[in-house]
Formats: sequence, C-alpha cells, structure tokens
Amino acid sequence: MVVRQSDRPGHLTPPKCYVSQELLDLAKKTSSATVSGVLTGIGFRFIYMAGVHPVRPGSLVVGRAYTLRYLPRREDLTANGPDRQSYPQTLAIESLGQGDVMVVDARGNTEAGIFGDLLVARMQYRGAAGLVTDGALRDTPFLRTNTFPCFVKGAHGYGHPSQHWAADVQLPIACGGVLVYPGDLIVGDDDGVAVCPQALAEEVVKRAVEQETHELYARDLITEGVPINEAHPPFSQEREAAYQAWRHARGL
Amino acid sequence: MVVRQSDRPGHLTPPKCYVSQELLDLAKKTSSATVSGVLTGIGFRFIYMAGVHPVRPGSLVVGRAYTLRYLPRREDLTANGPDRQSYPQTLAIESLGQGDVMVVDARGNTEAGIFGDLLVARMQYRGAAGLVTDGALRDTPFLRTNTFPCFVKGAHGYGHPSQHWAADVQLPIACGGVLVYPGDLIVGDDDGVAVCPQALAEEVVKRAVEQETHELYARDLITEGVPINEAHPPFSQEREAAYQAWRHARGL
Amino acid sequence: MVVRQSDRPGHLTPPKCYVSQELLDLAKKTSSATVSGVLTGIGFRFIYMAGVHPVRPGSLVVGRAYTLRYLPRREDLTANGPDRQSYPQTLAIESLGQGDVMVVDARGNTEAGIFGDLLVARMQYRGAAGLVTDGALRDTPFLRTNTFPCFVKGAHGYGHPSQHWAADVQLPIACGGVLVYPGDLIVGDDDGVAVCPQALAEEVVKRAVEQETHELYARDLITEGVPINEAHPPFSQEREAAYQAWRHARGL
Amino acid sequence: MVVRQSDRPGHLTPPKCYVSQELLDLAKKTSSATVSGVLTGIGFRFIYMAGVHPVRPGSLVVGRAYTLRYLPRREDLTANGPDRQSYPQTLAIESLGQGDVMVVDARGNTEAGIFGDLLVARMQYRGAAGLVTDGALRDTPFLRTNTFPCFVKGAHGYGHPSQHWAADVQLPIACGGVLVYPGDLIVGDDDGVAVCPQALAEEVVKRAVEQETHELYARDLITEGVPINEAHPPFSQEREAAYQAWRHARGL
Amino acid sequence: MVVRQSDRPGHLTPPKCYVSQELLDLAKKTSSATVSGVLTGIGFRFIYMAGVHPVRPGSLVVGRAYTLRYLPRREDLTANGPDRQSYPQTLAIESLGQGDVMVVDARGNTEAGIFGDLLVARMQYRGAAGLVTDGALRDTPFLRTNTFPCFVKGAHGYGHPSQHWAADVQLPIACGGVLVYPGDLIVGDDDGVAVCPQALAEEVVKRAVEQETHELYARDLITEGVPINEAHPPFSQEREAAYQAWRHARGL
Amino acid sequence: MVVRQSDRPGHLTPPKCYVSQELLDLAKKTSSATVSGVLTGIGFRFIYMAGVHPVRPGSLVVGRAYTLRYLPRREDLTANGPDRQSYPQTLAIESLGQGDVMVVDARGNTEAGIFGDLLVARMQYRGAAGLVTDGALRDTPFLRTNTFPCFVKGAHGYGHPSQHWAADVQLPIACGGVLVYPGDLIVGDDDGVAVCPQALAEEVVKRAVEQETHELYARDLITEGVPINEAHPPFSQEREAAYQAWRHARGL
Repeated sequence: MVVRQSDRPGHLTPPKCYVSQELLDLAKKTSSATVSGVLTGIGFRFIYMAGVHPVRPGSLVVGRAYTLRYLPRREDLTANGPDRQSYPQTLAIESLGQGDVMVVDARGNTEAGIFGDLLVARMQYRGAAGLVTDGALRDTPFLRTNTFPCFVKGAHGYGHPSQHWAADVQLPIACGGVLVYPGDLIVGDDDGVAVCPQALAEEVVKRAVEQETHELYARDLITEGVPINEAHPPFSQEREAAYQAWRHARGL
Repeated sequence: MVVRQSDRPGHLTPPKCYVSQELLDLAKKTSSATVSGVLTGIGFRFIYMAGVHPVRPGSLVVGRAYTLRYLPRREDLTANGPDRQSYPQTLAIESLGQGDVMVVDARGNTEAGIFGDLLVARMQYRGAAGLVTDGALRDTPFLRTNTFPCFVKGAHGYGHPSQHWAADVQLPIACGGVLVYPGDLIVGDDDGVAVCPQALAEEVVKRAVEQETHELYARDLITEGVPINEAHPPFSQEREAAYQAWRHARGL
Repeated sequence: MVVRQSDRPGHLTPPKCYVSQELLDLAKKTSSATVSGVLTGIGFRFIYMAGVHPVRPGSLVVGRAYTLRYLPRREDLTANGPDRQSYPQTLAIESLGQGDVMVVDARGNTEAGIFGDLLVARMQYRGAAGLVTDGALRDTPFLRTNTFPCFVKGAHGYGHPSQHWAADVQLPIACGGVLVYPGDLIVGDDDGVAVCPQALAEEVVKRAVEQETHELYARDLITEGVPINEAHPPFSQEREAAYQAWRHARGL
Repeated sequence: MVVRQSDRPGHLTPPKCYVSQELLDLAKKTSSATVSGVLTGIGFRFIYMAGVHPVRPGSLVVGRAYTLRYLPRREDLTANGPDRQSYPQTLAIESLGQGDVMVVDARGNTEAGIFGDLLVARMQYRGAAGLVTDGALRDTPFLRTNTFPCFVKGAHGYGHPSQHWAADVQLPIACGGVLVYPGDLIVGDDDGVAVCPQALAEEVVKRAVEQETHELYARDLITEGVPINEAHPPFSQEREAAYQAWRHARGL
Repeated sequence: MVVRQSDRPGHLTPPKCYVSQELLDLAKKTSSATVSGVLTGIGFRFIYMAGVHPVRPGSLVVGRAYTLRYLPRREDLTANGPDRQSYPQTLAIESLGQGDVMVVDARGNTEAGIFGDLLVARMQYRGAAGLVTDGALRDTPFLRTNTFPCFVKGAHGYGHPSQHWAADVQLPIACGGVLVYPGDLIVGDDDGVAVCPQALAEEVVKRAVEQETHELYARDLITEGVPINEAHPPFSQEREAAYQAWRHARGL
Repeated sequence: MVVRQSDRPGHLTPPKCYVSQELLDLAKKTSSATVSGVLTGIGFRFIYMAGVHPVRPGSLVVGRAYTLRYLPRREDLTANGPDRQSYPQTLAIESLGQGDVMVVDARGNTEAGIFGDLLVARMQYRGAAGLVTDGALRDTPFLRTNTFPCFVKGAHGYGHPSQHWAADVQLPIACGGVLVYPGDLIVGDDDGVAVCPQALAEEVVKRAVEQETHELYARDLITEGVPINEAHPPFSQEREAAYQAWRHARGL
C-alpha cells in the first residue's frame, strides 16, 4: 500500500511524473556530480545533500524517492512504542518496491540510528534501490559489509525512538538541506546525493550521460598531455571530429 | 479559515484538546522554566526549544501553537514566486486569531528571515499572541522596538524565498528540536520556549502556578538567610504553616 | 596613503566606481534587509554577512569598504611584533577617511579581538563611518557605550596577534561569507550587513529607498486592518492613487 | 565547610596562594582584556574563556575561583535525585564566602540550566562575588534584572539533572576551554572571562592596572588627534614626561 | 600501581563491581547497538558516545574502563614538560592490565593527538584491551594498520601538550558526552561506543547476547521473505517453537 | 608561468628560500606528526591543518606550496563564467611543476568541489606532487581509486562556481587554519597536513628524520617490553650505545 498526500488547500501538491526503470538504468551511467552539474547549469542550487555519504565507500544509489518524515521523540506518543500495523515506518518499508529509494528526513540528527540491520534487510528483500537519510544508521558493522546502498550522515547505536518518531510518509520533506518530493530521482555516490525533480529527470539524465562521455574523452586527452583549456568542451571543430570518431569506436 | 490535517493512514493524527483563553491567562503567571520543570518531572524530555530567544529581551509569549512548515527553496517551485491566494504562509497568517502563536519549522536555518515587519504587523493586528521559529527574522531594527513577542534563533536580511518555501500548515512539525502539534501550549521567555502537550496543559499549568508561588516564597526565605536545603519544598511542618500564612496574606 | 592593488595577471582587478557621500546619505534611509532584497531581486545571493551584528544594538553602518586581510598568526613573522610604520593594520587605520568602513577579513575566527578601544577611537577621530569584521573585538565594555558603529561576530579579550597577522590592505577579501571589494557599499544594522557592488550602488540604493517608502505605507495600511495580500505592492489602481497622495502629504 | 583535594599520586596538586581581598579590589580597576593581555605577554595562551558572557550586559566579575565539576547525567545515579546533605552542588553553594566566584565545569553543554534563581539568590546572600560557567542558567528573566554577576554560554529552562550531575568540588577543572584551579583569580566582563593563575595574580594585576592607566591616557591623546603609533607606549621621552604629569594631576 | 579515588565528602564515590574476564568474553558476542538497546530499554539514555569511531574500520573493543582525565594546557604547568615518574599519563599506561580499556576525557578537543604510536604500542604490550577517547590520536598512518582497537573523534599531528595536560586517573570522567566510572564495561564498534554501568554489566550482557541470537534468527526470516512485523519478537507461538528449534540446531 | 606577488607597501612579502627536490625526497621519510613535533618544539603552534585528510586513506603528500586563493562567488563576476586564459585557477594549474603542491584557500567551505577529475588529472600529468585544500573535491568516486594525493575537508558534487571564484595565485593564504606562503614545505598524511616555513625546512626535516629513527628504535624496545619512560629519548648511556649499534646495523 502506498499512502499518498491528497491535494488540499494549504499544502504543496506533489508532482506526478513517473521516473521509469529504463531511465533509472540510464542514470546509473552518470554520477551525482554530473547530475548536479546539469541542474546547476539550468539554475538549480538546492538539489545536493551535504555531508550524506555511503556507509560502504564506493556505493552508488539510483532510484525514485519514497519519503518518510521523522519528528522529534515526545513521551506522550512513544510511551507504549509504535502500533505495529499503522506505524508510518512500517508502512513505508512494506510499501517500497523495485527502484524505490527510502529517503528519511531525520532533521540532521545523528544521535540515534533511524534503522538497523533487520529493516535494511527487509528493504533489500523487497527489491528497493537504497536508503538515504540525513540521520544515522545503527548496525553499521553489518551494513558496511552488505551490498545494499545506504547513505547517511553518521552512525549511532541507539534505536530511533531515542530521538525520533515516524510521522508520515510520502509528503515532500527536507533531507540533507534540500527538498525531496516523493518520486524525485535520487543519484548518490561518494561525493554525496543529488536530487533531480522528477519532471526534469529525463532531460537531465540524458544531458548528464552526454557529459560523462565528454569527460571520459577529456580524461583521455589530458592523459596525452592536452591542457585543460583544450580538453574541456566546447571543442574546436577538429577536436569535435576526433571526439565523434572516438565515440563511434567505443559505441558511446 | 483554518486548514487542518485530516486523519489519514500513515500520518500522525493531531490531538483535539482546546486550550482555553482562561488557561492561557493563568499560564502567563508561570515561566518556561517552571512549565518545563513540571513536564520533566512527569517524564518528558523533548519539550524545550534550544537557542530560541526573544528579539526583544524580556518578552513573554503564551498561546496555542498554529504550525507552518517551511521546506528548502527549490527553483522549480519558486521561479514565479508564491501564488498570493493559496500560499501556505499567507493562509497561516490570515488564519491566526486571538491567543494563537505562529510556530514556524525553519529547520534551524537562519540564513534568511522567515518574515519581516509587515507580516508581523498583520499578525499583531489579528490579535495573535506571538511568533516562534527556529529560523531567523528580518527587519529586527523595527521588531526590537515593537511589543509583539517574536522568538527566533537569529536575524537575517534576506527574504524567506532565498532559503525556504512554505509547504503546509497545521501539520505536526519540529521546531527548535522538539515536536509541536497544532494547538499545543507555548510558553516562552528569556530562557527559551517550552511546548506543553495540549492534553496535559491544564494539569501542567496549575502545577506550575503552584510551584511559582512556592519559589516566590523560597526566594523570600533565602533573602532572610535560610539555606538552600530548607528553602526548597518539601517544607518542614512548621515551615509549611508559615508558607500557608504567607500565601493567605498575599491572596496567592 | 591608500595602498591599492595594481592590475596583475592572475589576480582579480578591483572595480573603480566611487560611491559618493550623497549616495551614502541616501543609503542611510534604507536598511540592510531592503538593500539585500533589491540585490536578491536582480539575482545576487552572496551579498549578506551572516552572524555579523552590532556591538551596540540599534547601530547603523553605511559607507565605502576599505579592506584589511588578516592571516593566521605564525611565529616566524610575529616573534618581534609588527613593524609600526609598515604594518598593514596601521596603514589601514591611518588611511581611512570620511565615509570609509573598515572591513576586516578575520576568517570567522573569534578567538581574539582584532582591534581594541584605542584603534577604534583613532578610526572615529579620522571620521571613518564604521567597522565590520567576521572576527571579534576587545574592549567591548567601552565600545558598547560608544557611538562608533562596530559590527562583529563576537568579543574576546586577547589582542589580535594571538590568532592573526595583518597581511595586506585593499585586496578583495571574504568577510562573513561574502566577497568584498575595496569601495563596495556597506549597509549594516541589527539584521546584519549587506554588501552592494559599487557599480550597482546608485541603482540599488534608489530602488531600496523607493521600497522603504512603499513599506512604510504598507505598515500604515496593515495597522488599519488591510490584509497582507492587499498591503503589498503591486497595488490596485485605486490604492496606487491613495499611495501617491500619502507620499505627497509626507513629502516622500 | 570547604572540601579540598588532598595531594595524591596521579593527581594534579592545587596551588595554595591566597588572593587577598585587597588584590581583588585592585583587580576591579582592570578588565578581562588587560589582564589577559598581560598574561599573553608573559607567554600564556590558554587563560581566556571563549563565548562566556554576562547575563546582564555591563556586568563585572572579580574573585577567587571555587570550582564545581558537573558530569553527564546517568540514570543509575540520578533516579532518586541528589542527597540534599552531601550533594556537591549544595556543598559548593554553602561553602562560598566573600570574594569567591563559583566556577562550574558544564563541559560546554547548554541544554539545561546549571542553577536557577534560588541558588543564585543564596550565593548572593552568602556574599559570593559571582558565577561563571560554560553551561547555561535558568530563570534568566529574573537574573537579568538582578545585580549578581552571572557569566554563561546560554540560557535554558530545564533543571540541571536533565543533563548534569554534580561530581565534586575544588578539583582543577576545565571551563570555557581553559584550566581553572581553586583559588585562581577570575576577571570577567563583556569581552569574556580571564583566568589568572593565583601565584601570578599580584604581579599581573599590578601590571594590568598600570596598563589601564596608560590606555586611558592614550585614549585622551587619540581624542586630540595623535596617531596610533605615537599614542601607544613606549612613549618618546617628551611624551613620557607629559604622561607622568597627566597621572600626577589625576592621582593615578 | 593503580591509583584509585578515595571516598571523600563532596565527591562521587566510584562503584566497586568487578567485571570478570568471562563476562568480557561473552560481551564480545554482542555489539554496541545491542548493549545500548538493552540499556535504553531499562531507562538509560546517556550511555553512548557520539562521534567516537575506530581508527581501523571493523574494530571491536570490549573491556573495563580505566579513566584518565586531561585538562587544558596551561603554561605555568607545562613549561618544563611532565615529570616522567609521576605524570598521570605515564601512571595510567603503566597501570593498565589485561582487559582494561584506557578511556581518556579530552573534552571533545581534537586539535592535538592524545597519544602516538609508542604509547599505544606500550598499552598493547601490557595486554590492554583498547583505547577510547573523545579527542584525537596521532600517528594514525601506523595505527590504522595495527590491530590494537583505538576509538577516537579525529586525528592530529600535534603531541598532547599542545592542548592538554594529564590531570588525574581513575576519577569518574566525561567522555563523548557520557559519564564513565573506572571499571565500567566498554563495548565499541563501527557504530560507536556503549558504556554499561559495571553493576548492571552481567544482566545487560546476558540480555544482549539473547537479543543478538533473536536478531540473527530474524535476519534469516527476513531473507526468506517474512515481513518486519512477523520477524521481530515477540513471536507467535508457532514461530517461537521454530526459533527454539533453530537455536537448538545451532547450539545457541 | 609563475605569477609572484611583488614587494609592495601594505603587503606581506613572501620569502624566497627554495626547497630542493633532495630535501623533498628526505622529507618523504618523515610524517606530518614528526615534522609538526619538531616545529612545536621550537615554538610554532599554527602550522598544522585541522580536519584536512586524504581522499584515499594512506596517502602521503610532500612538496612545495603553490597557493591559489578562492573568494566567495558573486554574481557580477561569475555571470559569464571565467575567462579561460586569465582565470587564476587555470593559471595555477598550468604553472605547477615537479614537486609543487597546489594549496587552495577555500575558507573551510565544503559546499562545492573546488576541482574535479579533469583538473586533478592535468596536475598529475604535469608532475605535481599533490593537492591540499580546506574545501571539498568532486568526482571522489574516481579520485579515491587514483594515486594522486588529494587532501580535503570533504566531498561535494557541485562545481566550484556554486560557492567560489578564483581570486589570485601565489599570495600568502590561510588554509585549514594556518598561514601558507608560496614555497613552504607541505607534509601530509592520515593525521593531517603540516606546513613548514621554507626558511626552516632543511633544519626541520633533518631533525624529523633523526626523530623518526629514534622512534623506530623505541618501538622495537617497546615490543620487547621496555616501559615508556625508558624507551623515549634521552636514553641512558648504555641504551644510547645500543641505539647507535642498532642504527649501524640498519644503515640509518
């Protein structure tokens, strides 16, 4: 079951553009730096999560955002623990599907782990694409040897109720200093995590793939001794021809 | 018009206990320290906003929380500026009434003013009781000479769209590290801001008033040279009698 | 003597537009919020110093930036103390004139006072317009009762050589997170400090004064019960006429 | 009763030099900046508390340190609250006498008030000279209108057991980033708080008073238009003579 | 030689429960997350060090706390360097035995290394179980290839006297925001470091081992597709039977 | 082409001592801890960059500083992007030679990458010795598998114009809290980065190499059970003889 926010006065209405699995596969050929570079090039400057890094260095996360909002713990709510059936955390995890990335607004608070090994294992079983939070995770001794991509600000041994209470799902949230709508495209790696508005995902990913190809070629040029100013596009006419030949030879 | 969150699966349901004007008047005889002291005494420890202080030292704010949630600016939303009629910020301000305190979740971000002099003047005209945010305000040269109680983390000259976008109203929010439900009792002064769950407001305020009376008496005792251990309740039987006489004489 | 940076390859060239005393006088009718509002309106977003506030609440600083760059202390330089004649700090203070604001890049370090009462008194004697730094000052017990406008991030008792060494004058610098060129227009108050590129100063100040007038009128409207959406420009035709009458009556 | 640390292997031994009331009176003519200036001049660089400021701007604190060490709350200790008779906080307050300054190591934690109005009133009654902490106080609405000098990093409504537990008295402690021995000379004002090792107190205070006189004279010179380089000691022979005459005329 | 704090008025008395080597061996089967989970379950919330992580990822530290308190450097103490025989740092290192973990209160200051390779090598030679500090270490190029478990907040090249002076041993201290008594049980891994009061160590470790077994089973269930709500204890009667069989088969 | 700052009044004059390749080779046998230890031993305390660590753990950087100063982005400069030929960033990269370390003053701002893979690859091609900044880099997924030593405070996907603008080259700068002159000796590893004034480089490196040899021997002693106080120099006469024999045997 996916709980979605209805359109109501006084609230932001989430957009409805679905990012396809094909586009996700294409996005895996890019990086968070290139995707954010394309977005800043068209005027965006609040689309990159600061200080959110993979538990396992070298991880890549690409998927559609599924949002979960945590609020600070308060004892009148948490005295008896969450109701297992209706607790938004449980709803969120049991709603995730192929290509979804759980994005958890933890308000930058790293004084408790938002999830541990069992919840991560469950998301992994359901085929989710990864987890991104501006909070912490617990059980990192397990998670850093596991392949499921987890992006966090820190690690902590406490369980989430020490600091948090899951409030709702699929609202637009803040995470790592940027706005995330349910369904936005997430691309994260060692640099951090880029959030691409879903309505722009196709255009941005295609331009990013193009740019990655450019940069691969530029790196080749630099290895051969070409100075920075000549290796960066836009190329001279001659260089452009050489570039097209290079691409053709590699099928890019 | 007041926009309220409906009960939906996957979301926290806001409580419905109305804090009366009489109770607000009573609460003005207490302080944020005493209210939070009573709450910590019954097991609460996430009910005090850290680092949120009055623009004008010596201010007191007491009222019912009306919540407004800001999210980070994103250029696809903000390019044309807000729609004047439906923008949650406008809805919030034009919904405030007697005894309401605007509480704005600004995620602790003080790099822009959430409101300026005009919006504050409008809230003041509508009879609102005050403003509390974990963000900043602008136009503090005006606000610090004005009587409307404003509690903030900082000051900044930029308007709110430089960093924020108003997302929704009357959801439970985080502000200053604590959860705030619409309708919760807010009591703030130079120490900071206490948030009292509305369902407990009556009990807590009555106990806080009682404690303030105790402490006023204790301060008298201390001025006369009574040591700490004797001046603090629980009192000896004799002292208790003297205390009751003292109260009687002052009509407390 | 004013030391200015010559044009050299590999260095930013400072602009040459002189901000007149008349324009400074006009700018005193605006505020840091309004000036920064005009600048953000035309696409600027790095022109406001965060967390730089007046030593004496209620101060206003308006002037042309004279820049002084501090670098971290290093014992091979500082062993014998500065040479009195050539030390950039001394050069800077003895170069300041009417309408100049000393702007000191202290790298956000508040662990020493950059100046004390004597240097401030000397700047005051020379007719300077004020002092702005992202460092600290010492002798604040004196400075907070004095009228010379000083804007700082903190206070500290140590003298500047404990942390700093004056490196050079009239280079472009960073202060409070923004770039400052020698000669830029500085407008600071309780909200913080706006930096207006000198080439835009005339246009920006004029628009800011216009906007201040608008807002003064809007505040009047709000006091009479006009809602936010009607009090903010652009006005209806009728309101615009009333506004012009209001201005005429006040000679604004 | 004053509890003092005995000399034991494995522990720092506190020094035994008593700072007299006469010296305290003399020290009131100096400032934290001048005292720390003299100390840095003889090689000290860890004797100034950063970010510890008076609750009431303009306060001056001068006295002998009486140290109280707080440790983080832990529930096995705090479950039943402190024992009233033996609790180090109570012992400390009831040990303070004329000229003593309570210095509380709160580890820079401002998430609870270390004391409130009653404890401060008791210290005031006992004739103590002031309170310095790198934590917070509660009941600042009262304290900011009271004359007892309180120097803090912040304000908070919670009582101290929310974060702290008083561990011991009269040990050497850290406060505001510097070491404080019981008996050290404390001099604090709007700039912050200087800690002068007791063995050096007499020499340092005398030199500081001398320097204050110099600076008073220098400020006069500057007001008359003398440049910085001539107003600062060492003076020319002629100026020195004028200075001595100036002192003589004022009885300094 | 072990220097222990005597019982004195005005000081916290350290507890006397000895954590056996057998219990330490058992504790190695748990994790910092599980131990802190058991402790929060019985009401503790200040028993986990924030931001203290292993120099070598994947390290595990389990042992009894031996405490060393650093205070800020002050030049009257440190001018001649420490006395080799009586310096608390030396005493501490030469007192450590099998199963002891050195826990150093560095006040969260990471601007100098508290120890380097030689001191660590000596602790290792003496059979100590590890090192935990909220400060930094130096010589991490060596330490990250060594097997001795070191848990720190950072790395720095300076030796400890640049910032610190060893004050005393075996007092209760603060480290990483929590109280540590000499003899408390330390359990640290990639998540961070849990501190278990020694009087509760046996009960807590046994419950933690039990919980680890539960979670191992739950992870198996999840791998087979069991949803979160069914995989977490308490189990249904049927599941409980299966669990017992699973344990029996593995001898757990 | 190397742009050097001329001697001008009001500016620090950079020193002119050239650190030879031989000395750089010798310095590779030391570490940042040992170099900074020698420097603190002769009175320096602002020569170590805090929190600047290698992108690839285990990296070592040794070379002569080539300085590049970034200032905050400002839209009047950056609207059209940099001029490719004269932009100080390009000049800097195309000026680097064998043994040079690019040191970039990014004011501690990690909200954008100062360089990406292409610029790093170009520096690598030119034979530069490494890169040190108190800002961030982008393209770390590539850089962490590459051998070029990069020392940073963080990682970020944005390109540098999001936050920075290259201002000038070969001025003295601040980086990681310390002053760096063009030509100073840089020695960095997992602990952080030491900056050695070029005029002292030869003396410091020789003493550091000597100390490394001492420490290697001391580690051997400790492995054989010698206590700390005996393993540290100064040695007893007998030990000194053994040490010289040990050195002789190893040709050290």
